[in-house]
Amino acid sequence: MKPLITVTRQFGSGGRELGRRLAENLGIEYYDKEVITAIAERTEMSEAYVKQIVESRSHNLYPITVGQTFSYADHVAINQIMSVYTAQSEIIKELAAKSPCVIVGRCADYILRDEKPFRLFVYASMESRVARCLTRAEEAEKYDEEHMIKRIKKVDKERKRNYNYYTGQVWGDIRYYDLCVNTTGANIKSLAETFAGLFK
Amino acid sequence: MKPLITVTRQFGSGGRELGRRLAENLGIEYYDKEVITAIAERTEMSEAYVKQIVESRSHNLYPITVGQTFSYADHVAINQIMSVYTAQSEIIKELAAKSPCVIVGRCADYILRDEKPFRLFVYASMESRVARCLTRAEEAEKYDEEHMIKRIKKVDKERKRNYNYYTGQVWGDIRYYDLCVNTTGANIKSLAETFAGLFK
Repeated sequence: MKPLITVTRQFGSGGRELGRRLAENLGIEYYDKEVITAIAERTEMSEAYVKQIVESRSHNLYPITVGQTFSYADHVAINQIMSVYTAQSEIIKELAAKSPCVIVGRCADYILRDEKPFRLFVYASMESRVARCLTRAEEAEKYDEEHMIKRIKKVDKERKRNYNYYTGQVWGDIRYYDLCVNTTGANIKSLAETFAGLFK
Repeated sequence: MKPLITVTRQFGSGGRELGRRLAENLGIEYYDKEVITAIAERTEMSEAYVKQIVESRSHNLYPITVGQTFSYADHVAINQIMSVYTAQSEIIKELAAKSPCVIVGRCADYILRDEKPFRLFVYASMESRVARCLTRAEEAEKYDEEHMIKRIKKVDKERKRNYNYYTGQVWGDIRYYDLCVNTTGANIKSLAETFAGLFK
């Protein structure tokens, strides 16, 4: 039986590439940014705004200050955030129900927990992640090594905070995954070929 | 090139079986209890005493109470513990230098860090570990499910304490491993066949 695979990954670890190649090897669908596009369509918000919400906003959803009052604008923002999360959950469940696939990010491992997906966590040393990020022309133009390290730490901090907040689990803790793969020094293409063997 | 692989594992996770089968698949040596036997020979202590030291004693090696005095017996015990640790380190380095191999436990990942071994961590859900342990006649005779859970927790607590003390790393934290494998519901034989592909 073809599998349902979720990929949670450190920024710059090659998790996206590993997920994509795994899907190719297994001949199944691959979803990554498509989820954002689908949420934007369903909620009629812009892709950029949806991306901002799912990547860095969840922890601001509920106020912890007792007695805080809300403006009308606050209420609108909270409703939008809720809509995005609801749409994300619905869309991920629909995609998974449609056919075997690999879904990258978006807390899909948690959203699909009743379907028992194969949960992959992909990570690498900071050195390896910096090197990988700097091979992308777009990133290399904007950041030197020192700033790239800061950026990686910032993105991962947000991913972790979002994931932990949304799932009640701990991002990168082995207990919540079936396989945790360190890509430092590894060839992602070969890794994908080997791991595809787990589902054949 | 044939690899050097270290296996760190939760009690009852099947890590030992996975290590053994991986070695078989790769046609390389496999060391587990052999390390204890070799330490006992080199230090002229009994295997049972060596086992007790490497599995549960390291954390008592240094007193933290300032001004504590030692008896002659204390000094003898401390020297024995030091001898066992020195022998363990020497023997593991010798085995690894001799030929490609899989070494289970004994902080081998840390002892061999300069050789850059492939570091595997094997784990599973408590439910799965209890079930696995209770398939062993020897264990099933002594423990019911409730006591088996207690035993697993106790063994893992000691492994973790020993590992963290001896290595300064964190047992089961992804940062210190190349691959972390959850064996819950998995067929260990198939896992070993697949993972052997990482080294071919």
